[in-house]
Amino acid sequence: MPGRELPAYLHLPGSFASGQVVELSESDSHYVARVCRAGAGDRVRATDGCGRVAVFEIVATGARVRMHCLESDQVARASEAWVLCGAPDEGRADWMIEKLAELGVARFQPVDSERSRWRTGRTERWRRVASAALRQSQQAHVLEIGEVLPLEAALAIVPADASRWSAEVAGDLLDPPRPAPARVAGLIGPAGGWTDPEQQLWARKGYRPLRLAGARLRTETAAVAWAAWWALGAAGVRAGSI
Amino acid sequence: MPGRELPAYLHLPGSFASGQVVELSESDSHYVARVCRAGAGDRVRATDGCGRVAVFEIVATGARVRMHCLESDQVARASEAWVLCGAPDEGRADWMIEKLAELGVARFQPVDSERSRWRTGRTERWRRVASAALRQSQQAHVLEIGEVLPLEAALAIVPADASRWSAEVAGDLLDPPRPAPARVAGLIGPAGGWTDPEQQLWARKGYRPLRLAGARLRTETAAVAWAAWWALGAAGVRAGSI
Repeated sequence: MPGRELPAYLHLPGSFASGQVVELSESDSHYVARVCRAGAGDRVRATDGCGRVAVFEIVATGARVRMHCLESDQVARASEAWVLCGAPDEGRADWMIEKLAELGVARFQPVDSERSRWRTGRTERWRRVASAALRQSQQAHVLEIGEVLPLEAALAIVPADASRWSAEVAGDLLDPPRPAPARVAGLIGPAGGWTDPEQQLWARKGYRPLRLAGARLRTETAAVAWAAWWALGAAGVRAGSI
Repeated sequence: MPGRELPAYLHLPGSFASGQVVELSESDSHYVARVCRAGAGDRVRATDGCGRVAVFEIVATGARVRMHCLESDQVARASEAWVLCGAPDEGRADWMIEKLAELGVARFQPVDSERSRWRTGRTERWRRVASAALRQSQQAHVLEIGEVLPLEAALAIVPADASRWSAEVAGDLLDPPRPAPARVAGLIGPAGGWTDPEQQLWARKGYRPLRLAGARLRTETAAVAWAAWWALGAAGVRAGSI
């Protein structure tokens, strides 16, 4: 009897290649063997979160499932989006991270500003959220989570060739650029807003004010709306009408 | 000493007009008198949630604040968006409602489908979420919350002239229509997806499949991404590039 195609999609950080045998973590082994009730010969898809996607065949189940990589492929990102994000009000970061991951954002960079600071110690939690969203939406790239940086340092690590946007209620209303630039950065103001010197700083760095809706948006809403705006361009939106 | 302009923005359902005196609810009175420390002569802005916005002058504080309406204005919506939404996974509705309200959606219509049903008894809670988002984003219209309906009944109450879209991973990628149509409806599939007969039903009703991102989105993410897409058009997006 040929093996089944399991609906599971795993996130296996670290490199793998066709022909290789990998051993799953305890929790992935539990998921595959107990939740999906997989047996030897069943096939499961996985990604390393860095663009490599593969089909594996299960060799052995048990406390640690072992799988053999049948074939793998490297997927390239057409457009890589960074979200540089000021601190939202308390309790609003987790779902924002999940949504940015689903929408295919490449990097989440938390930014401390004069009026709003991030609570520390959330990075590992956000990485788990990003990994769960990756598995759920079956993408090839995981949302990378940066350590909190002050605004100036965050602006400094954005690649020099990135197209730069700042979500502002007084910004321009524009369609996402087509074709999507290879690298795009979206800067999202903190709950308390930017100070004048901060605004002057990002303006000097070439961030163009972009308006996303009719009303002022909360930090986390602006981040998700910006990512949705970018995702349209990245997925290859074409001009259209009703 | 002339009164202050309070940063508060109230939601006062029910009609009011210039010259009228209104008495606030206990909780609004508490907010105005205790949290904002308002006194007689201070001014506060409010909306009825149906497009009327007004400036009030406080006449008397105490357990029940009384205010005199100095001037009021009726604001029209350029484009009215309805979100018809299948049930997402448990625990994901509240923030979706908040985000749809912030983005300026007119009506949220929960839709029961064959594979996913809404938990009942949430309507009042969602109305409170919508009212809080209205006050926070200082808009003139509150997100109206419909009672749960089966798909066919929900499709039947959408105005006949509405431009109709269904968020689908296999749909077309399109810019939001410009100018935004007077009425726009976005249909969002439930966590379990539509059945074939359901898909045929909405297709017959003229809903056009629209793709919002590169990957499959969760129900609540698709709803917010659709609203962000519509909001761009409604706010008057113009074609642009980098």
